[in-house]
Amino acid sequence: MKTDVQIAQEAKMVPITEVADYLGIDEHELEPYGRYKAKVSLDVLDRLEDRPDGKLILVTAINPTPAGEGKTTINVGLSMGLNKIGKKTVTALREPSLGPVFGIKGGAAGGGYAQVVPMEDINLHFTGDFHAITSAHNLLAAMLDNHIHQGNNLQIDPKRIVWKRVLDTNDRALRNVIIGLGGRMDGFVRQSGFDITVASEIMAILCLATSLSDLKKRLSRMVIAYNHAGQAVTAGDLEATGAMALLLKDAIMPNLVQTIENTPAFIHGGPFANIAHGCNSVMATKISLKLADYVVTEAGFGADLGAEKFFNIKCRDAELKPDAAVIVATIRALKMNGGVAKSDLGYENLSALEVGIVNLERHIENIHKFGVPSVVAINKFPTDTDAEIALLKEKCAAQGVEVVLAEVFTKGGEGAVELASKVVQICETTLANYAPLYDVEGSIEEKITKIATEIYRAERVEFTSVAKKQISQLSTLGYDKLAICMAKTQYSFSDNPTLLGAPTGFTLTVREVKVSAGAGFIVALTGDIMTMPGLPKIPAANGMDITESGEIIGLS
Amino acid sequence: MKTDVQIAQEAKMVPITEVADYLGIDEHELEPYGRYKAKVSLDVLDRLEDRPDGKLILVTAINPTPAGEGKTTINVGLSMGLNKIGKKTVTALREPSLGPVFGIKGGAAGGGYAQVVPMEDINLHFTGDFHAITSAHNLLAAMLDNHIHQGNNLQIDPKRIVWKRVLDTNDRALRNVIIGLGGRMDGFVRQSGFDITVASEIMAILCLATSLSDLKKRLSRMVIAYNHAGQAVTAGDLEATGAMALLLKDAIMPNLVQTIENTPAFIHGGPFANIAHGCNSVMATKISLKLADYVVTEAGFGADLGAEKFFNIKCRDAELKPDAAVIVATIRALKMNGGVAKSDLGYENLSALEVGIVNLERHIENIHKFGVPSVVAINKFPTDTDAEIALLKEKCAAQGVEVVLAEVFTKGGEGAVELASKVVQICETTLANYAPLYDVEGSIEEKITKIATEIYRAERVEFTSVAKKQISQLSTLGYDKLAICMAKTQYSFSDNPTLLGAPTGFTLTVREVKVSAGAGFIVALTGDIMTMPGLPKIPAANGMDITESGEIIGLS
Repeated sequence: MKTDVQIAQEAKMVPITEVADYLGIDEHELEPYGRYKAKVSLDVLDRLEDRPDGKLILVTAINPTPAGEGKTTINVGLSMGLNKIGKKTVTALREPSLGPVFGIKGGAAGGGYAQVVPMEDINLHFTGDFHAITSAHNLLAAMLDNHIHQGNNLQIDPKRIVWKRVLDTNDRALRNVIIGLGGRMDGFVRQSGFDITVASEIMAILCLATSLSDLKKRLSRMVIAYNHAGQAVTAGDLEATGAMALLLKDAIMPNLVQTIENTPAFIHGGPFANIAHGCNSVMATKISLKLADYVVTEAGFGADLGAEKFFNIKCRDAELKPDAAVIVATIRALKMNGGVAKSDLGYENLSALEVGIVNLERHIENIHKFGVPSVVAINKFPTDTDAEIALLKEKCAAQGVEVVLAEVFTKGGEGAVELASKVVQICETTLANYAPLYDVEGSIEEKITKIATEIYRAERVEFTSVAKKQISQLSTLGYDKLAICMAKTQYSFSDNPTLLGAPTGFTLTVREVKVSAGAGFIVALTGDIMTMPGLPKIPAANGMDITESGEIIGLS
Repeated sequence: MKTDVQIAQEAKMVPITEVADYLGIDEHELEPYGRYKAKVSLDVLDRLEDRPDGKLILVTAINPTPAGEGKTTINVGLSMGLNKIGKKTVTALREPSLGPVFGIKGGAAGGGYAQVVPMEDINLHFTGDFHAITSAHNLLAAMLDNHIHQGNNLQIDPKRIVWKRVLDTNDRALRNVIIGLGGRMDGFVRQSGFDITVASEIMAILCLATSLSDLKKRLSRMVIAYNHAGQAVTAGDLEATGAMALLLKDAIMPNLVQTIENTPAFIHGGPFANIAHGCNSVMATKISLKLADYVVTEAGFGADLGAEKFFNIKCRDAELKPDAAVIVATIRALKMNGGVAKSDLGYENLSALEVGIVNLERHIENIHKFGVPSVVAINKFPTDTDAEIALLKEKCAAQGVEVVLAEVFTKGGEGAVELASKVVQICETTLANYAPLYDVEGSIEEKITKIATEIYRAERVEFTSVAKKQISQLSTLGYDKLAICMAKTQYSFSDNPTLLGAPTGFTLTVREVKVSAGAGFIVALTGDIMTMPGLPKIPAANGMDITESGEIIGLS
């Protein structure tokens, strides 16, 4: 089979103006970036204020394994399948981060015949949104250090600066740094560090803001340090809000591209799915809902993190009403959850599958706790046997959920027609009754405990003494009535990445608690969360090239 | 008078496709970025290979003073003036750096009625070129540290790493840092630092490259460290060339915009004018020469640095043949060179002017050493008196050079019609006979001494013991047959910024010598050259904002 970049470069793209026409976007609302990318003005929302929203479909998944689930691929394939059966559909995805493209993973724009294109642009600088976030984030950091250097009117405690710097590069050497060395004019010496850009709170804010003025309010609220009296110092206190908003003036507009079957795709924003909420921008979702009959969107990692945050943070905050969820799984990944090694996944193993299916079953249960109907999509592999598929269908039927096979990687939209029909059937026959899981008015401990016991099924939650102190401080400062953003391993329902399947009886340990006041959530860290990746021994970058004729090598 | 941003936002821009049509750029050679910006494919050069080049006009200036000379303004105004008298003209400028926009200086896209637009985009992210350079530069840095972390096959000496990191932010706290702190997986500890993006060697390379393959060759040659045996380690040795080229695939295409009078403007690349050569990209200049009758371009700082490097580095390297030079001065700045304080510049002072004119006279002499005819353009201020202007004309006439007044800030192209006519007259009647000043085959000391004595008029050149050792090492490694890039204060012909006018009898001290092997020059540092600016006590950022209706505040 051809490589992803070969398939992508052979795709017959239509001009982005045609994609925009198809969606009914006015010419003055479109800012083309080259022939096949464009930004879409937020004016669309005002113009179509009275138009009813389309159906909102969340694509989520079981806990990720090294076997892969293909959540983005299904997301893209389903949107193409829906178009094939006559539903005007948009796929709404996150933008890939540049740093990891050069590390292990390559790009993140779907795969095979279920990709968004131009994949090489989407995986590289795209329309510059992440660069704008990097610029705004680091401007604020420079203004903060400069403020202290120039006299420190705000009485910032240099030991309690929480705003780091960011780069969209996998660079382990920048995780922990000492800055401000040199002479008297070179700032003051302190310890700090760099995160990758997708970990910036500004990324989360960009993805939750509903307008430029909402963006500015959120930027202004960001806590960047504490003063000597222990009070929060915000970006607004530093008078940095306007300049940051100016840097983000284009980044707030959603990006329009297309799938390789010319289905419209909004790809906008990409916050981390651990220390942030892992969903594309609210503005892209809202615009899509005004323009299309169906909007297919995804959330990061498995449903325990991704769907939980999509429902409890994004949908609550933006007042979105999801209509259905598609839970993606593979027979292979479920067998891994049942204890099979990656090298043995090619053989039928009904008993391992039966053990592993508990992971899927629990995600199904969880989705229903939010009042949203679901369907299971099996991303089909050639090694899946009829008996395995029959077992899976039987188990899911017992929970009242249907299983549909999809083959989008090799067949594109054609491989998702059955899944698309099922999604339409659900939307047309089952009334969703979405509600978030917890009330934000509860205490921080209560809200964390609710997620941990009802979604993860922890027996109990332990808060370290550090976390307890932080919760007390944040509550005193009035930062407790916010949603919770859990930072937990994506590999397990628990905080132990080796506990696959559907673990019970475990204790979830909350080690640290932080506020992202601009994003509007409390981040609860349950383990060592890596916010600046490193490069592997042989980085993907080593094999990359571009020829004089424009052929791109090594991007996947 | 209106502010720059008000004038710019009121400008009647034409769609960039119209600007491209006017220049005869084919549709498939144009990549629009929004309605008013576009990238132009290098394919233009192949298609028009046989077309004769237009005339190349360099705009340079006396040594800068706090009074301001308006070099970019004259550059833009002259191009509009040439269009007014029927010459198809392109202005070719450097891209402004993002960092300084938020510090003291505001933007850099001309001023008043001689601006390039959309100024707010040009001054912010524009088409993302600088972000691409930042990404490529920092990817290489991460790959370098990662290489050592992963076993150091290349035997790189961690004490002799010369590749730093860059950010397009004014951030003094990053000038000197220690990186790699933390645990075993967080890299190794070493001292390093950040420069501003425009100081990256990749910026200089992007501006000197003549094609994608030339870009790759240059990237590959960059010296990033030395190994334990003292040999140079290059980006090519790290296998980083292809990935960097991929990150730069759009950045190498020149950006097309327009002046507020719709004159085509290529704005592409912006290397530092001290540690690099301070000119817009060769590709923008070459494409402009194929598309227009006249190309008006500029070089950074005064003619002692800017014009010298334009002639000795850019024109030599790219085989360009400049036809004329415009030397910009103001009566005010010449009076400052004659010892008048900034607060007293509003009064006639013929004796001070006579003293200060020596600065201009020496620049005129120097330009002629390169075989290029010139004209002096006086950027007129209301306080300039008839007697002052008469004196200036008389002095320049004695050198055989005419003086033309220009009023482009308040009148736009109309204020440069006389200057434009004079430039055309020179080009049509005087055959330029451009030649560089020195032979690159000479030794590093010889070449530096030639620039110092013939352009700066130093009595002698002193090389510190450090510089001598570096020269010896670079010569041994075969890096001596390159052009010289002088890093010197822009305020004086000497290396002492307080020596205004036309100093003589001074000694120029070369403190340090480095190689930029990809750019193809030796950098000779004659003082403390700041490669990472800081923010002032009250940054310009504090006063910036964007309103919900898109009005931009505080950008100038």
